[in-house]
Amino acid sequence: MCVGYLVRPLTAIIGPVSGIVNGDYMTLDDKWFTEICDGCGTAFSLKIKRKLHEEKTPYQTIAIYETEKFGNLMAIDGCTMVSTRDNFLYHEMMSHPVLFTHPAPKNVVIIGGGDCGTLREVLKHPGVKKAWQIEIDQRVTELSLQYFPELCESNDDPRAELLFIDGIKWMADAAPGSIDIIIIDSTDPVGPAEGLFTEAFYRDCIKALTRDGILIQQSESPLVHQKILQAMYNDMRTAGFNNLATLNFPQCIYPSGWWSATMASVSKPLRDFRQKDAKNKMFATTYYNAEIHQGALAAPEFFKNIAR
Amino acid sequence: MCVGYLVRPLTAIIGPVSGIVNGDYMTLDDKWFTEICDGCGTAFSLKIKRKLHEEKTPYQTIAIYETEKFGNLMAIDGCTMVSTRDNFLYHEMMSHPVLFTHPAPKNVVIIGGGDCGTLREVLKHPGVKKAWQIEIDQRVTELSLQYFPELCESNDDPRAELLFIDGIKWMADAAPGSIDIIIIDSTDPVGPAEGLFTEAFYRDCIKALTRDGILIQQSESPLVHQKILQAMYNDMRTAGFNNLATLNFPQCIYPSGWWSATMASVSKPLRDFRQKDAKNKMFATTYYNAEIHQGALAAPEFFKNIAR
Repeated sequence: MCVGYLVRPLTAIIGPVSGIVNGDYMTLDDKWFTEICDGCGTAFSLKIKRKLHEEKTPYQTIAIYETEKFGNLMAIDGCTMVSTRDNFLYHEMMSHPVLFTHPAPKNVVIIGGGDCGTLREVLKHPGVKKAWQIEIDQRVTELSLQYFPELCESNDDPRAELLFIDGIKWMADAAPGSIDIIIIDSTDPVGPAEGLFTEAFYRDCIKALTRDGILIQQSESPLVHQKILQAMYNDMRTAGFNNLATLNFPQCIYPSGWWSATMASVSKPLRDFRQKDAKNKMFATTYYNAEIHQGALAAPEFFKNIAR
Repeated sequence: MCVGYLVRPLTAIIGPVSGIVNGDYMTLDDKWFTEICDGCGTAFSLKIKRKLHEEKTPYQTIAIYETEKFGNLMAIDGCTMVSTRDNFLYHEMMSHPVLFTHPAPKNVVIIGGGDCGTLREVLKHPGVKKAWQIEIDQRVTELSLQYFPELCESNDDPRAELLFIDGIKWMADAAPGSIDIIIIDSTDPVGPAEGLFTEAFYRDCIKALTRDGILIQQSESPLVHQKILQAMYNDMRTAGFNNLATLNFPQCIYPSGWWSATMASVSKPLRDFRQKDAKNKMFATTYYNAEIHQGALAAPEFFKNIAR
């Protein structure tokens, strides 16, 4: 999905700075982390103070930077994953809408989500009895504990169970009809996450879900990844999900700055949710509320071709 | 707001491409247009094929590029203004929500908007009798005719009047109570557009508006420009606008990829709109529809501190 570069002393980036009246030339001489979205023709950069860490795990390369304005940044295989400043958008939208759509979610599984931010949001719901986080790469969580401790503040909740194993295998072996909510909080559909975007995996999810069960999966950019969304819709439908609904939300550090998550269910309608509970929620959020939830369900005109 | 660079042969951008398993190094050797958002710590880049045009007008420097994936791009003083691919988001959200909020808009003024994209959208409403476009820099419109002809396809509509004069002066001289809708479709609040973000200008707008009149103004990024939004809210309120409502929408090429427009009125409530008319609209849009309109009005939790 992306090709990432660590950009440092960019002394060759010299151009006319039209905004400066005297017509002087300047050099872009600070350090930047840049993610190029291959195929989108775009790149997004964050100004960084320094690299805090980089390592190659058995699964991927993880790097942590201290940015100028976005707090810490975790990049995996060169793609921005989480920043201190704007992760609230993604984590809240991956959790609260689906939890307020289900009538009474008790057992929740997060596939991926190793930074623990989604887990933290899920556990804000007092009705949740058990939340598994199935992250294949333990180093993601260990580095999140170190560099994003606020995302990990519910890791010791007695309802939380963190497993560092293959989510695809875990789902295939899950007891049928045992899970209320499956949250697929993965990287892009290349590399280790590729198997999470397949009809076979969705079939295993359907088997594991309860009757009112709902799956939600991060589904890339509505603007620049429409082919991925279309393929996901096709695979989900073929697997047996009868209801699909995509939530759209801003996510500054991801390609195009506009992101989505798609809910899927066999029987539970997805456009209604527990509005009253969402309005009276007993926990704080930074982005999510009942109106934002309703608004995120609105499909842009162009999206109707995908969601047909 | 931004410092823009034309970035070409970026041979110095060399870094580890973690996504490539063999650990090879690559150079970013294509041409890119990059806008650095000063103060945001972010930069956004579009891959370009070539520069089509650049000129210094009495007001600003305008450049046109042919991009790889976003069609043509117009940049003013180094800031992205319009791309062929994603301008529909901005232009539709600057026009249809406010026009469907007013009970029966007949006389519409666009201040700025020289690319003519907002004018085109406004004229899709059959009830509009007259639409002025007051753009200070005629070259913006002339270059739009050349490089964004689709945005200019309604310029010859008999209801349209294009004036190339100072919008601030025009508004000060406008007949009191003569305008139903004022759309402030300007650049950022620096340079020529600075006077459009002032209490004095808002007072002139209030004088020019009819009783149910509404103003809408592009109001920067809800994520990275909260101080501008807060100042705008204060100035609008002090000028005499009793109702304010901010619409949020994605805009890939603008800083943070998330943008806003703020409606203001003295008496007309702004959260209700002609839902039925919006649902049954007789013209095509790419983003806007009644659900998107409703959703764009939803204020994120954090925004409630600004909108208080």
